Amino acid sequence: MQKFAHENKQYFVGIEGGGTKFNCIIANNPEEMFETIRIPTTNPNETLDQVIAFIKESSKNTHIKAIGVGTFGPLDLDKNSSSFGTITKTTKHGWSNFDILGKLKTAFSVPISVDTDVNAAAFGEYTWGAGQETDSLVYLTVGTGVGGGGILHGKPLHGLLHPEMGHLIIPLAISDSPQGICPFHNNCLEGFASGPAIKAIWGKPPEDLPKDHPAWDFEADVIAKGLMNIILTISPQKIILGGGVMKKPGLLDKIRNNVLINLNHYVQHSSITESIESYIVPPALGDYSGRYGAVALASEIYHSQR
Amino acid sequence: MQKFAHENKQYFVGIEGGGTKFNCIIANNPEEMFETIRIPTTNPNETLDQVIAFIKESSKNTHIKAIGVGTFGPLDLDKNSSSFGTITKTTKHGWSNFDILGKLKTAFSVPISVDTDVNAAAFGEYTWGAGQETDSLVYLTVGTGVGGGGILHGKPLHGLLHPEMGHLIIPLAISDSPQGICPFHNNCLEGFASGPAIKAIWGKPPEDLPKDHPAWDFEADVIAKGLMNIILTISPQKIILGGGVMKKPGLLDKIRNNVLINLNHYVQHSSITESIESYIVPPALGDYSGRYGAVALASEIYHSQR
Repeated sequence: MQKFAHENKQYFVGIEGGGTKFNCIIANNPEEMFETIRIPTTNPNETLDQVIAFIKESSKNTHIKAIGVGTFGPLDLDKNSSSFGTITKTTKHGWSNFDILGKLKTAFSVPISVDTDVNAAAFGEYTWGAGQETDSLVYLTVGTGVGGGGILHGKPLHGLLHPEMGHLIIPLAISDSPQGICPFHNNCLEGFASGPAIKAIWGKPPEDLPKDHPAWDFEADVIAKGLMNIILTISPQKIILGGGVMKKPGLLDKIRNNVLINLNHYVQHSSITESIESYIVPPALGDYSGRYGAVALASEIYHSQR
Repeated sequence: MQKFAHENKQYFVGIEGGGTKFNCIIANNPEEMFETIRIPTTNPNETLDQVIAFIKESSKNTHIKAIGVGTFGPLDLDKNSSSFGTITKTTKHGWSNFDILGKLKTAFSVPISVDTDVNAAAFGEYTWGAGQETDSLVYLTVGTGVGGGGILHGKPLHGLLHPEMGHLIIPLAISDSPQGICPFHNNCLEGFASGPAIKAIWGKPPEDLPKDHPAWDFEADVIAKGLMNIILTISPQKIILGGGVMKKPGLLDKIRNNVLINLNHYVQHSSITESIESYIVPPALGDYSGRYGAVALASEIYHSQR
């Protein structure tokens, strides 16, 4: 646990729930952070009990205004549903049907906002990062899994459920292309482009594949085709690519080139045709988009209820 | 020109601009229509001059509150752009860079709202049709072309530009599949599934292909794959399928089945898994979604400026 100055002030809590760890932060924005902790993801009650203990301990020295949560899903985000704020059916052992919002509500009386990890990251970048000048953006993470979130008309993207951009089906140029690893779809973005997919297809994890390995041309082609369909569906003003796999040097440029090749001059906007390097960008908040996004969700629900 | 009762009242104008005709309507909603006309699409000034003459003639007997336009594009819909409301680069001869909003503004001093034909149709169905109970929907038309519009958070979907769902790239199951006809992309939705694509691929126009022709299995597969990617990107609460090709008996049911097969139980929501027949639906306003959508756009801009 890191400790910082600013005791006795008012803060928000941001909780980023991931498959291996929960990152919690007490902050008002990326410039004003009070405390942070990393809690390993075990079973849901044990994990959330530690999250709650951390917040209660922190609130001895500071006032907590609201809590924001961005977590892995799928989630029920229908405010009219009896299971609103619950993780629905997930492959993560023990977490299916866990009521994460309910668990936090029994411990705290402040406003609590819940969204997907990627919608939170999108909202963090929209509020304080690479999407500050926009009204709409997509945040796509390529790592252990592939997931996408969005901001449209200034709000996180929800509908029937929430986006599941990792499972976009991808057309491949060659008939003898590798098999994807998704148990649901044999040719989806996550099944081809996630870290585990790279390892399964090419025999080595992404970090061990040299920069000039053909895996990266394939990876860039698959991600670009997914982005092309996202651009044609939503027309976001900015696309932010995060996640561990995206840290590979050269990959982002390959993706930008492949997006231009695939669109083939169809979408005529100077943001794409003339300055794609500022249209498809890395997260300005680096690895912190998700947890500061959760802080932004907390801030939004706090101000909407005043 | 059809004439109806209700003279001396206040009305909105809805203009649906298409490649072969402009449908204009003087109405407040589908229950309260004053006058309507169909003007052939020739060159832009001649066409709009006729539209303007119709509105001026109608306004002798009634008061026009605002005008809504839903037109073919692509359009510049960036309110901060100097060419806002202009048709940009189009294959429709003579219409590239035509300032449709500017032309109407020189003739009328009432508020004028411009959007794509498919966003207007989506807004019409959202306001008075199949999407009245929703907060988000997608309207896809399959006819001479394929186009998609959307309502998200209650507003027509804009971003960098507007959706171009007709050009979603589609993965095909078989390597010896037919070639699409899109000049930009060799495997996009419009290139495979539009009326002209059906004729090019199967040798006959859609109306001459029997219900049990393999063309319809292919058509349903292509459209379902496009819809799957739309569902995974936006997660709309309702999908409305309009356009001439969709009138083929049996096609809608085939598409619903193919969406379920392609999603393969991944998106767990009862609207999809248990009642897809009320999730993917025909337009409740029939062929009138676009022009009443334009009326709804007029109503929206009128009320937002009061």
